[in-house]
Amino acid sequence: MTATVHSLRNRPPASIDRLVALTAPGLTAVNHVIIDRMQSPVALIPELAGHLIAGGGKRLRPMLTLGCAALLEYGGARHHKLAAAVEFIHTATLLHDDVVDASGLRRGKATANRLWGNPASVLVGDFLFSRSFELMVEDGSLKVLKILSHASAIIAEGEVAQLTAQRNVETGEDRYLEIITAKTAALFAAACQIAAIVAERDASVEAALQAYGRNLGIAFQLVDDAIDYVSDADTMGKDSGDDFRDGKITLPVILAYARGSEDQRNFWREAMSGRAVADADLAKARTLLLESRAVEDTMARARMYGAKAIDAISGFPNGLAKTALVETVEFAIARAY
Amino acid sequence: MTATVHSLRNRPPASIDRLVALTAPGLTAVNHVIIDRMQSPVALIPELAGHLIAGGGKRLRPMLTLGCAALLEYGGARHHKLAAAVEFIHTATLLHDDVVDASGLRRGKATANRLWGNPASVLVGDFLFSRSFELMVEDGSLKVLKILSHASAIIAEGEVAQLTAQRNVETGEDRYLEIITAKTAALFAAACQIAAIVAERDASVEAALQAYGRNLGIAFQLVDDAIDYVSDADTMGKDSGDDFRDGKITLPVILAYARGSEDQRNFWREAMSGRAVADADLAKARTLLLESRAVEDTMARARMYGAKAIDAISGFPNGLAKTALVETVEFAIARAY
Repeated sequence: MTATVHSLRNRPPASIDRLVALTAPGLTAVNHVIIDRMQSPVALIPELAGHLIAGGGKRLRPMLTLGCAALLEYGGARHHKLAAAVEFIHTATLLHDDVVDASGLRRGKATANRLWGNPASVLVGDFLFSRSFELMVEDGSLKVLKILSHASAIIAEGEVAQLTAQRNVETGEDRYLEIITAKTAALFAAACQIAAIVAERDASVEAALQAYGRNLGIAFQLVDDAIDYVSDADTMGKDSGDDFRDGKITLPVILAYARGSEDQRNFWREAMSGRAVADADLAKARTLLLESRAVEDTMARARMYGAKAIDAISGFPNGLAKTALVETVEFAIARAY
Repeated sequence: MTATVHSLRNRPPASIDRLVALTAPGLTAVNHVIIDRMQSPVALIPELAGHLIAGGGKRLRPMLTLGCAALLEYGGARHHKLAAAVEFIHTATLLHDDVVDASGLRRGKATANRLWGNPASVLVGDFLFSRSFELMVEDGSLKVLKILSHASAIIAEGEVAQLTAQRNVETGEDRYLEIITAKTAALFAAACQIAAIVAERDASVEAALQAYGRNLGIAFQLVDDAIDYVSDADTMGKDSGDDFRDGKITLPVILAYARGSEDQRNFWREAMSGRAVADADLAKARTLLLESRAVEDTMARARMYGAKAIDAISGFPNGLAKTALVETVEFAIARAY
C-alpha cells in the first residue's frame, strides 16, 4: 500500500480535467436530456430541480458512464439518456438526503428544502426518481433497468442503515463500510456498469467497471467524511462540521473512538448524542482526530480503495479514457489535501 | 345523470365483498410477494413498512389488478408480482404523503412518521418505490414498466401541484380535477391497465380498463374529500377535518367558495390560510358546505365519474368479475352515506 500512496503522491497535481475534456461532447448531450426531462407543467418542479441540477454539480456520475463508455470505445448515443437517468437518481437522493439531515447548505448554496420546504423536496425527488425510470424504459434495456432499480433499493437501504446507526458511536468500521458501499458506492458502480451494457460487452467487463465504480465511490465517500473535519464552508461549499453536529458516525469518529481513552470515548458519546456540539466541542473533536491519526488513516483507507479502483481497470487498453479514469480516482482522493 | 343516481341508489347496499371474494386466492399470492419483498437486513425497513402494509389497508389497487385480470379470464400468475409492485408504489406514496401533510393518524393508527420520524418514512418510501421497480423488472414487460413509471411521475406531479394549490382558495374545479386525476386516479388506472398487458389483449382493452380505473379513482377521491367534512375519526379512521386544518383545497370547499357571499368567501380565505381553523370554524365550514349543497354536489360529481367507470367496462361479457367491478364503483361512492 505504501507503493500505491507513493505513486499517487509523486504524480502532478491530481485533476479531473482529463475526464471533463474527454466527456465534454457527451455531457452536453446528457445535459440536454436532463434539462428537457426535468420539465413539467407544474412550474415548481423544474424550478426546484433546476436549483440543484444547475447549481454547481460536477455531473461526476454521468461523466463516469461516459468515461467508461469511452474506455470501451462505444460509439453510440444510448448512454446519454441513461447517464441522465443516473443523474436524476442522484439528484432525487440529494433532495431526500437534505430533508433527512435537515441540511441548510449544499455546494455553497441554500438547499432546496431550506428554500422551498421539506414537502416540495420530498415530492420533486419522487418525480425525478420516476422520470429516471421513464428514461430507462425509453432506452428499453431490462438489464440496465435491473441494475439501476437494484442500485436504488440498495441506496435506500444504506440510507436507512445510516439513520439507524446515527448517533451510535459503537458502529464498527465494517458496518460503516457496508453503509457507504450501499448509500454512495452503489450508484457509482451502477453508473460505470451500464456502460458495459450499452457497449454490449461481456460479464467480465461489467464486473470490472462495476468494481472500478464501487471502489471509487467508497474512496470518494471516505474522503468526504475526512473533509468534513479538516475543511471549512468556504473551501468545500457545505457546512463544515455538519457530520459532527448531526451525530453522523463516519470513519474518522469510529477510529478516534476505537483508539480513545475512556475520557475521550465519553466525549465522543456526548458529542455524537448531540449533547456536546458547540464550536469548542468541534475544535476538541478535531484535535482528538488529529492526535489519534484518525483522519490520516481514513485517508489511507481511501487511497487503498482508490488503488483497487485503478486495479479494476488495469486490464483495459491504455489510452486517453483509461488515463482519465485513473486520474479521476487520484482527484477524488486529492480533494482532501 | 339522475338516472344513474337512481340506478345506483335502488340496488341493495353497495359492497366490495364480491371483489374481495373473487380476488381472495390471488390476493393471498400477492400478499405473499408483498411480505417477502418488503424484507431487508436493515430491520427498520420491514418494521416500518409492515406497520402500514399490515395495518388495515384494503389492498384496493392490487384487487383491481386481480379483478380486471379475472374480467379478461387471464389464467396466469404474472399479475401477482405486478399487483404487489402497484401496492408498493401506493405504500411509498402514503409514507411520503404523511410526511408532506404532517399527518399523525391514518386508518385509525398512528402514522409511520409519527412513530419513526420523517427521515425514516422518506427513506423507507424510497426503498419500497425501488423495490416496486425491481418487481416489474423481474416480470420483464417494458410495457408494464412504461405504464407504472409514467404513472409514478404523474402521481408526483399531481402531489406537487396539490402543494402549489395548497391554501389557495381560488383553485378552480378544473384544476382540482387535474390534480386528483394525477395524484389518485393515475395509479387506479395503471393498476387496471396492466391486467390487459399480462392478458395480452389489444389497445382497446387497455384503454377500457384504464378508463375504468381512472374514473373510479376520481370518484374515490371525490368521496374521500366529501367524507372529510361529514364524518369523524371513529367512523373513517383518519382525523376528520384534517383537510380543513391543513388548508387542503378540495371540491367541497371550491364549490362552497364559488357559491358563497363575500362574507363567506372571506371566511374560506381565512380558514384555508390557516388563520381560522378552530373547532368552531370547522363547525361553521360544515354548515356552509351543507347550505351551499357543496358536499351534495361533490357526491353528484362522484356518481357521474362512477357511472363513467361502469360504462367503460360495459362492453365486456357479463359475469362475476364484471359484477364485482361494478359493485366496487358503487361501494366507493356509498362510503359517504
